[in-house]
Amino acid sequence: MESLSGHDLAIIFLALAVLLGAARLFGEAAKRLHQPAVLGEILAGVFLGPTLLGRLFPELQAGIFPSTGGVPLVLNGISSLAVTLFMLVAGMEVDLSSALRQGKATLHIALWGMMLPFGLGWIVADFFPGLLMKGPVPGGVVFPLFVATALSISALPVIAKILKDLALIKTDFGAVIVSAATINDLVGWMLFAMVLGFVGTAGPTPFDGFPILWVVVMTLAFVAAMLTLGRWAIHRSMPFLQAHTSWPGGVLGFALTGALACAAFTEYIGIHAIFGAFLFGVAFGDTSHLRERTRDTLDQFISFIFAPLFFASIGLRVDFISNFSLSTVLVVLVIAVAGKLGGCYLAGVLGGMGRRESLAIGFAQNARGAMEIILGLLALHAGIIDESLFVALVVMAMLTSMAAGWTMERVLNRAKPIQFADLLSAKGYAPDLSAGTNEAAIAELAKLGASLTGFPAEEIQGRAWEREELVPTGLPGGVAIPHARLPGLAKPAIVFGLSAQGVDFNAPDGLPSHLVFLILTPEDDPRPQLEIVSGIAREFSRAGRVEELARCKGFTEILAALRAHG
Amino acid sequence: MESLSGHDLAIIFLALAVLLGAARLFGEAAKRLHQPAVLGEILAGVFLGPTLLGRLFPELQAGIFPSTGGVPLVLNGISSLAVTLFMLVAGMEVDLSSALRQGKATLHIALWGMMLPFGLGWIVADFFPGLLMKGPVPGGVVFPLFVATALSISALPVIAKILKDLALIKTDFGAVIVSAATINDLVGWMLFAMVLGFVGTAGPTPFDGFPILWVVVMTLAFVAAMLTLGRWAIHRSMPFLQAHTSWPGGVLGFALTGALACAAFTEYIGIHAIFGAFLFGVAFGDTSHLRERTRDTLDQFISFIFAPLFFASIGLRVDFISNFSLSTVLVVLVIAVAGKLGGCYLAGVLGGMGRRESLAIGFAQNARGAMEIILGLLALHAGIIDESLFVALVVMAMLTSMAAGWTMERVLNRAKPIQFADLLSAKGYAPDLSAGTNEAAIAELAKLGASLTGFPAEEIQGRAWEREELVPTGLPGGVAIPHARLPGLAKPAIVFGLSAQGVDFNAPDGLPSHLVFLILTPEDDPRPQLEIVSGIAREFSRAGRVEELARCKGFTEILAALRAHG
Repeated sequence: MESLSGHDLAIIFLALAVLLGAARLFGEAAKRLHQPAVLGEILAGVFLGPTLLGRLFPELQAGIFPSTGGVPLVLNGISSLAVTLFMLVAGMEVDLSSALRQGKATLHIALWGMMLPFGLGWIVADFFPGLLMKGPVPGGVVFPLFVATALSISALPVIAKILKDLALIKTDFGAVIVSAATINDLVGWMLFAMVLGFVGTAGPTPFDGFPILWVVVMTLAFVAAMLTLGRWAIHRSMPFLQAHTSWPGGVLGFALTGALACAAFTEYIGIHAIFGAFLFGVAFGDTSHLRERTRDTLDQFISFIFAPLFFASIGLRVDFISNFSLSTVLVVLVIAVAGKLGGCYLAGVLGGMGRRESLAIGFAQNARGAMEIILGLLALHAGIIDESLFVALVVMAMLTSMAAGWTMERVLNRAKPIQFADLLSAKGYAPDLSAGTNEAAIAELAKLGASLTGFPAEEIQGRAWEREELVPTGLPGGVAIPHARLPGLAKPAIVFGLSAQGVDFNAPDGLPSHLVFLILTPEDDPRPQLEIVSGIAREFSRAGRVEELARCKGFTEILAALRAHG
Repeated sequence: MESLSGHDLAIIFLALAVLLGAARLFGEAAKRLHQPAVLGEILAGVFLGPTLLGRLFPELQAGIFPSTGGVPLVLNGISSLAVTLFMLVAGMEVDLSSALRQGKATLHIALWGMMLPFGLGWIVADFFPGLLMKGPVPGGVVFPLFVATALSISALPVIAKILKDLALIKTDFGAVIVSAATINDLVGWMLFAMVLGFVGTAGPTPFDGFPILWVVVMTLAFVAAMLTLGRWAIHRSMPFLQAHTSWPGGVLGFALTGALACAAFTEYIGIHAIFGAFLFGVAFGDTSHLRERTRDTLDQFISFIFAPLFFASIGLRVDFISNFSLSTVLVVLVIAVAGKLGGCYLAGVLGGMGRRESLAIGFAQNARGAMEIILGLLALHAGIIDESLFVALVVMAMLTSMAAGWTMERVLNRAKPIQFADLLSAKGYAPDLSAGTNEAAIAELAKLGASLTGFPAEEIQGRAWEREELVPTGLPGGVAIPHARLPGLAKPAIVFGLSAQGVDFNAPDGLPSHLVFLILTPEDDPRPQLEIVSGIAREFSRAGRVEELARCKGFTEILAALRAHG
């Protein structure tokens, strides 16, 4: 095998470390701002690429990410591997069986929500290509087909995440949205494969393979085979693998080998590798024999390592400032949003859903994400689109994803459930409660609560104690949750303390409470208190959880123990 | 970035799929034969490389694994990444804190077990280089230093695995062996880094970096910093990461970013990338804040995906037949084994251990594995050794690893504990017990037992029932374990059945048994029965386990459920 020099290797590892570190950092920052992590990951790459780092420190940028020699080739190979593995996991998230069980309404939403932006996109690209690209546009159907497809695919992972956040994922409403997005995804990928088939014949680097008709036939045959025979074969072989190979290595190796083999096949027939990995993921994720634990291992490693690497690598290729064209961004944004919102809204209302729900469905399906960016990248590489249109697609994907969660919350008038761990703070933590009685413990915590909320300690204590005397708040297992409702409190707060000797809060099991949470909520809103109480009760229903927290040194370790479960 | 063509990508994915699939397959086969998986993985590569596939189907081999162009470069980059990640996990397995707590005997074993093969290797390489290489030998200390180092490093992961298999890992004896191997590992890597420093100045592709003195100083400074400051910083930042970033993404991203950054640094100063990743792994694996779950995710994904990819890729580089020299293999084997066995035995006996234990320690430390192969690969690449010596090193590593488990079992007169799941078979499984009483259920299973063992059904039933009447064998939770000891039975056997309605086996909780295991063991050996009974009791102590198995369709699914836990 040809080999890399030591210097090349050092640069490759450095580039990977910088990309991964920055992507994870920005991804976490995005999550802090209640945005999908992928937004931060893309932004990290934009900062590290020609857009910012290359502008400010061109030599440093070229040193870490050289553009000639073996290093960029290897990084290109690794990011291709990364996106292929990401598509395996994206495919595994597709719940085909349950999507197919949904009714006609779902199908209508999926198809209309797709056809309208598709049609709009095609018309603009075919008749007014100047709105999208300054330079010459490739002839034939490939340009309008690409634009139409790129504007009509929804982002299933983003949509699923938002529904999870809003606790809607397991409702019927959520099922309709996810199923419509699933069908949209599959149809979108079929179109995607067709675009790639055309790229093979139309692009500047024509694939030395098959004529377009053959590509279409083989693609359809592959899809049909994977979703029937492939699904069946995987389902049948899983028990055998788990029974007769090392666990979980047998299943992990099988998943990766299968995804890579399918990727090689689809790349070979002239559509992209990621399509094969995605379809294998759909078939693989569908079997009921796949254990949650194995799914998690695959999902976590790939989502947190490979996906960030890939998304950050996008920004390395394009200068997002010099290629930013406001008019192109606006045109793309208007077609994409108007088409998707309109199509879904119409389908929803005609399918008998309320106007508000139909609008919410539209906003949900409007989220775009990884897929249009990946598609755009391939089109850019094949010379179908220019940098400006690529940048506009990325900006559109990022903006619609950001908007989806926010608009759904508003339209459905629904907020994210409160996670009690989010309300804990070092300031509101008493590491060593000295009180011997429940009344004294409440008084001790009320003082902390006063400094946190600005309410007088006496009022907090009085209101909490009043309730405590009516209904004791000791839970079985060593936790107590006294609470006070305060008139005019802006938002809920929690103060809590550890008591080594324990305080009697009249728990049903008769045991003293070692962990006491004093919950402070606005008087006129019963919702937060319910969510906090049920969250605490759920958390401490697991055996040994209180002891684990009592062993922690300091607030950060407690928060770590609450967050990093399992 | 420079890009790969579609054809290149298809080949890369195909090559990865073939490598991974074959490596996992051969790895599983090795495990079946009670050998470390790494043996099978290396063998898979030998079969796919010039040794076998290249000999039989040279065009096919060159098609999947081309030797020129971008593909081999990318595969080289990916296998470098794979071995670097593997070293992260290998480092995480090093339990530095507990190794340092061990006494002087451990230190003696580690040092003498290293110094003797090191000294022997040096003498042979320095004074009789013709025994090892036919051609010219590089001048200076680099050749003897390499040979001495490669012959003296033990394989910590192989040793830990064997001790786990023999249930010795948590004994004092096991701790001594593992700790000695740990110290050996660390000292070995220091030597390794020095060799690489010399390679930088002596090899045909001199690193454009630092003079050798600087390399040594920077290496020592790096080791010291990682094992003190780095360890402390990682330990301190883990609770923060777990408390304030998404779980487990924060910690996973941190581990990979850190390992890649350290890899880039050590590659940059002129020792290899894997050394940095290994040391980061040692520091990272040492913190008590690292959760078992995160460790597992890293370990499983890397051990079952990246490690096989790397080990299989070794065989692609060298023709193991045309470069096989029996005399070189024998010389390497004799020095390695005599030095390691002699050193450890002497250190053990002088340190006050029994002769038998000392010999067992010697056989354990004698296992070589990944490290000498990796080291050999680098030396081969740098032109310090030729293909024949490399092949001899690989063969030596494989043979000593294979021998270690076998010899330890014999010397310590200790067998692997029986795993009851290994004794289950489709032939010995009754999917639907019709019996209504425990006596009838035993009779039903005894018939199965008869066809399995050749003993008359009446005898099995009679002996099992005799014991059942004395002591009822129903366990709480719905499992019963009647047993019969049979005179002259060659090896233990289990037959089992599912009963939908349940059979009363007088369980202490009064519940009927739905899962009945009839255990057949040789009359004169009480050990198997104990191990089987305690294994079954442990397995079904988890709530819901019996119900889970009762839901399974067919024997393979039951075995899968027993094997794939979590």
